Amino acid sequence: MKATPQVLKGMRDFLPPRMILRHYVIDQLRRVFERFGFEPIQTPAIEYAETLEGKFGEEADKLIYKFDDRGGRSVGLRYDLTVPLARVVSMYPEIVKPFKRYQIAPSWRAERPQKGRYREFYQCDVDIVGCTSSAADAEVVSVAYQALRQLGFKRFQVLINNRKILHGIVAKLGISEAQAPSIWRAVDKWDKIGPAGVRSELAAAGIASETIEQVFGLLEPPADGQPILAALAERLDGVPMAVEGIVELEQIMSYLSLADVPSEFCRVDLHMVRGLDYYTGPIFEIVVAEPRIGSIAGGGRYDRLIGLLGPVQHPAVGISLGLDRLIDVIDELGMAPAEVRSTVTEVLVTVFDSSLLGESLAVAASLRAAGINTEVYLGSEKLAHQLRYASRKNVPLVIIVGPEEASRGVAIVRNMASGRQEQVDRGALLSAIQAGIDEQVPSAPGEVS
Amino acid sequence: MKATPQVLKGMRDFLPPRMILRHYVIDQLRRVFERFGFEPIQTPAIEYAETLEGKFGEEADKLIYKFDDRGGRSVGLRYDLTVPLARVVSMYPEIVKPFKRYQIAPSWRAERPQKGRYREFYQCDVDIVGCTSSAADAEVVSVAYQALRQLGFKRFQVLINNRKILHGIVAKLGISEAQAPSIWRAVDKWDKIGPAGVRSELAAAGIASETIEQVFGLLEPPADGQPILAALAERLDGVPMAVEGIVELEQIMSYLSLADVPSEFCRVDLHMVRGLDYYTGPIFEIVVAEPRIGSIAGGGRYDRLIGLLGPVQHPAVGISLGLDRLIDVIDELGMAPAEVRSTVTEVLVTVFDSSLLGESLAVAASLRAAGINTEVYLGSEKLAHQLRYASRKNVPLVIIVGPEEASRGVAIVRNMASGRQEQVDRGALLSAIQAGIDEQVPSAPGEVS
Repeated sequence: MKATPQVLKGMRDFLPPRMILRHYVIDQLRRVFERFGFEPIQTPAIEYAETLEGKFGEEADKLIYKFDDRGGRSVGLRYDLTVPLARVVSMYPEIVKPFKRYQIAPSWRAERPQKGRYREFYQCDVDIVGCTSSAADAEVVSVAYQALRQLGFKRFQVLINNRKILHGIVAKLGISEAQAPSIWRAVDKWDKIGPAGVRSELAAAGIASETIEQVFGLLEPPADGQPILAALAERLDGVPMAVEGIVELEQIMSYLSLADVPSEFCRVDLHMVRGLDYYTGPIFEIVVAEPRIGSIAGGGRYDRLIGLLGPVQHPAVGISLGLDRLIDVIDELGMAPAEVRSTVTEVLVTVFDSSLLGESLAVAASLRAAGINTEVYLGSEKLAHQLRYASRKNVPLVIIVGPEEASRGVAIVRNMASGRQEQVDRGALLSAIQAGIDEQVPSAPGEVS
Repeated sequence: MKATPQVLKGMRDFLPPRMILRHYVIDQLRRVFERFGFEPIQTPAIEYAETLEGKFGEEADKLIYKFDDRGGRSVGLRYDLTVPLARVVSMYPEIVKPFKRYQIAPSWRAERPQKGRYREFYQCDVDIVGCTSSAADAEVVSVAYQALRQLGFKRFQVLINNRKILHGIVAKLGISEAQAPSIWRAVDKWDKIGPAGVRSELAAAGIASETIEQVFGLLEPPADGQPILAALAERLDGVPMAVEGIVELEQIMSYLSLADVPSEFCRVDLHMVRGLDYYTGPIFEIVVAEPRIGSIAGGGRYDRLIGLLGPVQHPAVGISLGLDRLIDVIDELGMAPAEVRSTVTEVLVTVFDSSLLGESLAVAASLRAAGINTEVYLGSEKLAHQLRYASRKNVPLVIIVGPEEASRGVAIVRNMASGRQEQVDRGALLSAIQAGIDEQVPSAPGEVS
C-alpha cells in the first residue's frame, strides 16, 4: 500500500481546479431548478437491498454495490436517485403533492468503466410526483432545457418517445412479452449501429424476419414532411395504448411550445427506448452532437414505481442530467466562463517575517470582511518563495507589507500576470484590489444564459 | 417490503424544509472557507480497505463499512475526510504546498446511533498540508471560529491541547506505552464523569494509585490565576516533548490573538484528548454549553499520517465541523435567519384552465427571468385546491390570471399570509411581487455575522 496509494477503478478524485468547475455547474443547476420551484431533498447513500432490487431490470440489478452490514442486513449503495425518491414518497404521506423535488448526488454502479462512464457518478435529478398531466412531463423537459441554456449549451436535442407507443407496437404485431425486450434493446442502438445492424441483431435474437419488417415499417420516417406523430397515428390506428401515447406526445410538444422551448431543440425519436424497466409513458433523452459523447440526460414517466415500494401508487415523471457528461462537454467546448478560475484565492498576502505577521493578518481580515477571498502565506519562507507559490497556484494578486511599507502605512500590490507592482495607501487598498480583480475577468465575460 | 419502506437505522432522509436549511449552512461554510483561500476537493465514497484501516485506532477500524466489491477487492466507505485527503496528497505530488483544502461530504461509521450521532453524517473539513508552522494550526482554528460566527453562534469554546504534552506526561511519569491509552481515555471523560469518576476508572484500568495522583497533580488547575501553560511549564520542566508542546500552544494563542479571535472563545484544556490515533501535536475541540450537545468540531495536527499512505511525509493540520451537530444547535436555538424558508418557491402562478395555461406560463417565465423562484401549478384542479396547495407548502405569494384578468392585461396577486389580494397591471407585476417578497422577510433580519 505504502508505495502506491490508489483510487478505485471507475472512481475519481477532483482536485481544486476541477472541483471549482463542478461547484459552478452544480450551483447553476440548483439555481435553475429552484427557479422552477423544485425543492431539494437528500437521502442516504445506503439503502436496504430490497428497496433497490427489482426496479431497474435484471442486468442492472447485478451492478448494484451490495453487501451485508454489521447487523447482517442486506444493503446496497443507491443505483440512482429515482428509487430513493419513490421510497421517500411512500414513507412520508404528509408530503404535499404535486411534489417537485431535485437532488444532486452521487450514485454507484459496478459497471465496466469507460469514457464518460464511471462507477461513482453524479446525477442531477428533477422529478414531479403526484401529477398525471402532460404539463408535468413538459415541465421536466423545460427545466432541463433551461438548465442547459444557463450552462451555455447552444446545440442539443431533446429526444422524446413514449413507452406506450412501443407497447402498442408490440400489441399490434402480436409479439410476445418475452420477445419485446430484445426488440427494444436492438432498436435502441439504431443511432449507433444503423438499420442494418438493428436488423441483424433482431434476427440474431430469433425474431421472425416478417416481424422485423413490420417493426421497421412502423418505425420508418414518414414520407414528404408529414409530421411523425401524424404518420404514426395512421399506422397505429385502433391500437388504444399507442393512440394514448401519441396524444400524450402531442400534448407535451404543445406545452413545450407554450413554455418557449424552441421546437428545434425537441424531436420525437421512435428509436429511443431507454434501458430502465420502470418507465411507463413518455421517455426523454438529451443528446449533443459535439463532442461525440452521446446522451447527457435521460428520464421519463414512471407511474407504477412508487407503488412497488409502498402502499400507495403515485404517478411521477422526472429527468436526470449527468453531471460528469455535462462537465465533459463544458470542458471540450471551453464553455466555462472566465470567472471560473483554477483557485478560489483572489489575493495572497505575503508575510515578511514573524514580527510583521500581525500587519499581514490585519490586511487579510479587512479584505475578507469586504468579501474578497484572501490567503495569508503560511510558513516562514522568503518573499521570492511566497511569490512563486502564488504564481504556481495562479493567484492573480499579491500584497506585500515589508517593514518600510508597514511604517509608512502603505502596501505593495503586485499583479502576478503582468508583474506590475504599485504602492497603495492602506486606506485605498480595498479599491485597488477590487480593480485588480475586475481586470482579471474580461470586460465582456463569456455569455452564460 | 411493500408495506413498510424504510430507511436504515442511523441514516436519515432530509425533506425540503430540512434540506433548505442544510444548503444554507453549507453555503455559509463554503463562503467562509473560500474567504480564507481553502480550495474544494472531492474524493470517492469508496476507498480501498487498506487505505482506511490502521489509521484511526483499533476500535474505530471495526466501525468501517467494509465489503468486497464485484472484482473481489476489499473496499470500504470512508470513515472520515482526513484519510482520503492524506491519500490524495500522496497520490498527486504536483499539488502545490502549503495545500489548503476544504471538503464538505458524508462519511459512514457503523456506530450505535444516538442523539447527535448518525451512521451517515456530514463533515465540513478544512486542512492545511505542508506547513509545520503554528500559524497553520491557528488558521484552522481561526476559520472555524469565523464560520461559527457567520452562522450566528455567539457562545462556544475552542478547547486546545497538545498530544506532545500528554506524551511528555507519560514520559515524565515513566508510564508504559501500553498503559498510556487507558489513562488518556479516562482523562478525556473528565467533563462527563468528574475527577472522582476519572480516578476510579484509572484504578479499574490497573493504574497504580501513586501514578494516578501524579497524573492529577500535573493536570491540576494552577493556583491563584497563574496561566495554565506557565504552571505546566514549571511542572514539566526538563521534559523536552512537553516543553515543545507548551511552546506550540503559546504560539497558537498568540497567533489567534493577532487574527482577532477573542481570547474568551479559546481555552487550553489539558483534559481534552480526542479519540483518533493519528494526531501528533496540537488538538482542538469546539464545544457549546447550550444546548447540551457537547462537541461540534474537532481536529488537530497529524504530521505522520500522510507518510503511512505514500512515499513522502507531509505535516498537516485540520479541523472538522460536524454539520449535523451545527444544525441541531441552529434548530434548538432558533438561529436560522428568516430568509431560510420551508420552501424555495416564492410565487405560485395558478392555472385557471387549460386555455389559459399559456398566460400562466408567460407570467412565470417573466418572473423567473428576474430571478424569482416561480412555480406554475401542475394539474387541473380548481383554483381553491391550488390555493390550498400554496398554503400547505407555505408559498408566500400566489398569482391568479383568470379569463377576465387575461383580457384586461392584469393579474391578481394574493398574499397568502394576510389573504389580501390586489389587482396589478401585468407591466407592474414584477415590482409588486418583489415588494411582496420583501414584506415576508422582517426589515431587521436575524443578524448573521
